[in-house]
Amino acid sequence: MNKTLLEQAEALGAMPNGLYATDFLLTWEKSTQDLQLVLKVALMLKQLRDQNLSVRVFDSGLAVSNFRDKSTRTRFSFASAANLLGLAIQDLDEEKSQLSHGETVRETACMISFLSDFIGIRDDIFLGEGNRYMREVAASLDECHARGVLPLRPGLINLQCDMDHPTQSLADLLHLQQVFGSLEALRGKKMAMSWAYSPSYGKPLSVPQGIIALMTRFGMDVHLAHPEGYGLIPQIVDMAAENARQSGGSFRVSHSMEAAVKDAHIVYPKSWAPFNIMEARTALLKRADVKGLELLERDCLAQNAEFMDWTCNSKMMELTREGAALYMHCLPADISGVSCPDGEVDAGVFERYRLKTYLEAGYKPYVIAAMMLANRFVSPAEVLREILQNQKPRVRYAK
Amino acid sequence: MNKTLLEQAEALGAMPNGLYATDFLLTWEKSTQDLQLVLKVALMLKQLRDQNLSVRVFDSGLAVSNFRDKSTRTRFSFASAANLLGLAIQDLDEEKSQLSHGETVRETACMISFLSDFIGIRDDIFLGEGNRYMREVAASLDECHARGVLPLRPGLINLQCDMDHPTQSLADLLHLQQVFGSLEALRGKKMAMSWAYSPSYGKPLSVPQGIIALMTRFGMDVHLAHPEGYGLIPQIVDMAAENARQSGGSFRVSHSMEAAVKDAHIVYPKSWAPFNIMEARTALLKRADVKGLELLERDCLAQNAEFMDWTCNSKMMELTREGAALYMHCLPADISGVSCPDGEVDAGVFERYRLKTYLEAGYKPYVIAAMMLANRFVSPAEVLREILQNQKPRVRYAK
Amino acid sequence: MNKTLLEQAEALGAMPNGLYATDFLLTWEKSTQDLQLVLKVALMLKQLRDQNLSVRVFDSGLAVSNFRDKSTRTRFSFASAANLLGLAIQDLDEEKSQLSHGETVRETACMISFLSDFIGIRDDIFLGEGNRYMREVAASLDECHARGVLPLRPGLINLQCDMDHPTQSLADLLHLQQVFGSLEALRGKKMAMSWAYSPSYGKPLSVPQGIIALMTRFGMDVHLAHPEGYGLIPQIVDMAAENARQSGGSFRVSHSMEAAVKDAHIVYPKSWAPFNIMEARTALLKRADVKGLELLERDCLAQNAEFMDWTCNSKMMELTREGAALYMHCLPADISGVSCPDGEVDAGVFERYRLKTYLEAGYKPYVIAAMMLANRFVSPAEVLREILQNQKPRVRYAK
Repeated sequence: MNKTLLEQAEALGAMPNGLYATDFLLTWEKSTQDLQLVLKVALMLKQLRDQNLSVRVFDSGLAVSNFRDKSTRTRFSFASAANLLGLAIQDLDEEKSQLSHGETVRETACMISFLSDFIGIRDDIFLGEGNRYMREVAASLDECHARGVLPLRPGLINLQCDMDHPTQSLADLLHLQQVFGSLEALRGKKMAMSWAYSPSYGKPLSVPQGIIALMTRFGMDVHLAHPEGYGLIPQIVDMAAENARQSGGSFRVSHSMEAAVKDAHIVYPKSWAPFNIMEARTALLKRADVKGLELLERDCLAQNAEFMDWTCNSKMMELTREGAALYMHCLPADISGVSCPDGEVDAGVFERYRLKTYLEAGYKPYVIAAMMLANRFVSPAEVLREILQNQKPRVRYAK
Repeated sequence: MNKTLLEQAEALGAMPNGLYATDFLLTWEKSTQDLQLVLKVALMLKQLRDQNLSVRVFDSGLAVSNFRDKSTRTRFSFASAANLLGLAIQDLDEEKSQLSHGETVRETACMISFLSDFIGIRDDIFLGEGNRYMREVAASLDECHARGVLPLRPGLINLQCDMDHPTQSLADLLHLQQVFGSLEALRGKKMAMSWAYSPSYGKPLSVPQGIIALMTRFGMDVHLAHPEGYGLIPQIVDMAAENARQSGGSFRVSHSMEAAVKDAHIVYPKSWAPFNIMEARTALLKRADVKGLELLERDCLAQNAEFMDWTCNSKMMELTREGAALYMHCLPADISGVSCPDGEVDAGVFERYRLKTYLEAGYKPYVIAAMMLANRFVSPAEVLREILQNQKPRVRYAK
Repeated sequence: MNKTLLEQAEALGAMPNGLYATDFLLTWEKSTQDLQLVLKVALMLKQLRDQNLSVRVFDSGLAVSNFRDKSTRTRFSFASAANLLGLAIQDLDEEKSQLSHGETVRETACMISFLSDFIGIRDDIFLGEGNRYMREVAASLDECHARGVLPLRPGLINLQCDMDHPTQSLADLLHLQQVFGSLEALRGKKMAMSWAYSPSYGKPLSVPQGIIALMTRFGMDVHLAHPEGYGLIPQIVDMAAENARQSGGSFRVSHSMEAAVKDAHIVYPKSWAPFNIMEARTALLKRADVKGLELLERDCLAQNAEFMDWTCNSKMMELTREGAALYMHCLPADISGVSCPDGEVDAGVFERYRLKTYLEAGYKPYVIAAMMLANRFVSPAEVLREILQNQKPRVRYAK
């Protein structure tokens, strides 16, 4: 087993690391090779831990989490990744300073960074804001490092913004790689990224955007489906089309869930808010228009309700390839008859794939840890080789 | 000193460990020998730390705390225990999802467990709910581990439920062992577990239940006293009687505090809510009946007020054996004239035993750490022996 | 480089350590030599970390933070210091038990301390309360340690009280030492500690008090300026005068910002609440007089507004020595046109010194870590020497 891991480390050693000392904000800013590096390192870290080997590379240091929106899964994933490598979590709790910019951001970014190695940020509610906020933080860290205020430049990790959710989409890709055997095996596989009905409102667009932008780079046939009015950020949709062209895959957008799931190998049915509603919401939130927000929510829920047949039930699943497509979800799913009367997926369908979605989620901590390792070390391969040589147990005295 | 510890480790080595890879939810699910193992390991851990030896067995790993009710003492105890062994605390803050069951619990249990070694849960407010919630979590962990989603099965530790408070009752037992010299010395000692007046409402039943269920197993003469209408869960009361029969101790229930404390070696005067009030409260809470809850609280406080003479004052203490019984409390106590006009105990009585109650509380972190060690290692004795051999200091360079 | 650090450690070895096993509550309770020890150790810790050497001296242990007022900078500083030395943070969140005293404080102090090495407290809102609260905690820790309840006496660190803010003022002093080359070079330098206008209310007096009490001990010419009615605690002002007399510096109080900054080498313009307003506020808060508090705030803001010309603009800066005084602030500053229409400092002035104020803030984690080291080890020099000999990297495998 260790021999296999050593072989993996050898193979890894041949790959250049373009992620060294750079933030991880959007998958489309990264080369495909660098994304593969993340997957390979993540998988090795998981195997090392499963074999009770310690991958602690930090003797001390902080990983700052800044969740500007609620989170359980990603919060625990970030905390787990940091802890795996030896960092302690320090949470920056801003209490709804959602739209703060300018001096506050610039200064706070520095104040939390004096002895920090990483900052993970979730800021996914407002279109045009989340990623911008992260870049404000990054710019301040750059300045403070260049000017000698920070001896070390902490790495930034996007834990979901208004554009992308890279730790999620890469965990999803790793799951696909494991289920289908390899990234190469994904070539030509049809994936339906489809909107699905949910009695909720305001869900971010970052997951579907992240999925279409990433999966089109690996030769997959990606079909994005949603009702009219539920479009994603146009530039990202265009990019997905261009990715498919370059990777030898394909990309389609339609307004039919049935067309999307037809003969699909993979289905990813998920609710999100209409783009224009998100834009209106951002404007209303900026001027704290409570009444306007209430009316918008009512309208949005009424609009959603017109598309209650956009749901992943057994009929829909029968349309997929051999009626046996892989169902995926970033969780939590809105399950009909379980978490809501009518939702994104039927209880029966979900139950069949439930443990698989847990497995999918289980890759996220390792994806984040891999991002951290690639950010901090020129050669993650060398670090992993040394870890293998040291054979230091995570749990001592364990037989 | 170390020699003594080595001897303790040798003696420990002879004991089988029935706690390995099992959750710690109720003391009455554990053999008496396993409870003794916890006490012995706890005491050794305390000595090791007092001698500045590191008992860190985890190089990384998370201990998840899930407090569904407020906590300071147990929160710090759990954090201290986890830290002592090398684990980092990650808190799952649910914000009053008190009665959540089903998919949410099953899924969340897995999501927080990918790189976690332990989960500590407090859920003590609703009769019939807390322990059931813990078992839902446990069932999900079992499934996820069996099906390969979790490479490691995190251990569950009950930090107080509606039935038992095992980390408290075992800390109390360890205190008694230290005060009286040995567990054997407790045989035939009379302990009064008595209800006491408090101007508050809704205190859980788990402490008195945990005490009568545990102490009756060690040959003690346990006298449970409470006003009519303040009974505990009947099955647990029956179990205490059966325990006493088997251990050669005795168990009595009366409606007289005086009868209970008469000639007692130990008194444990503590307020709790009437069983039927707790049942009514659970029903009202489930349907969010605010008005009903207010009326119930008023009635309950009025009912309490009829029993203001149920208080541990100096007169009551004079009735005890040589007027010098050991006073115990899980803290915080409601102290007459200090934290309330009239409460569970007089200021003078409390002051006499105050530091002893602090000592009592001080065992809890070590009891929890011992539970963790016994859960994770087939032979805690072997681990402790290696720790003694390594002589790694907790605080380096300290002279 | 390491040779230099070794030399520093040698020099340090000659200094006695009066901080061993004592709390750090007020700078004026400490000898000047002990304050210098803190600065020296802090600077060495910073260099060690910058050179990727681990200064982890604790293999486990907790540092408890108890913020009875909001904090980002000091919270991260305390967390960073604890983590640097190997301690985990455990936060005691009291939820507005601001004025709790007596049994609660005494008991809680013990309950959080069984396995804790340090407790850091911020309690700065109420005049006459914060420091008193810390001493209540300290007294309980003393008693519990003396009586065998706590095998180890946790060290207390004042993270800002109503009287002093020692981690801030010592970070400020370290900044001055670095900017001017040495503590000796500060002799005869003029420092203006001036009130400045801010559209806020209720800012603590601890920073200006801490500054005048500390800087007067190093032969500086300290000029305290504020409008009438904005005086500080009289005893501390008297002490500053006495300090200056003894150190060969000088101390003046005036009601003119211009007089203060005239020819100053250093300016520290900062808003604070009038002493009598703080006293009235404390009384109103104690009886929860919401209406009274609103009126007081209105009056106070109106009073502030009479002194809007007390602001650090370019005209004011031109009055300083060669128009180039060092601007200092504990952050966040109220910046005119940035964080408020009119505030303590002009945007242009602040921008010129912005990164310098970040540098100033960056010393605080190391000052706190130095306090911890000096508290726990008779000879911090010896510890630092061993750390230098061990050459253990903080980030392993880093090249």
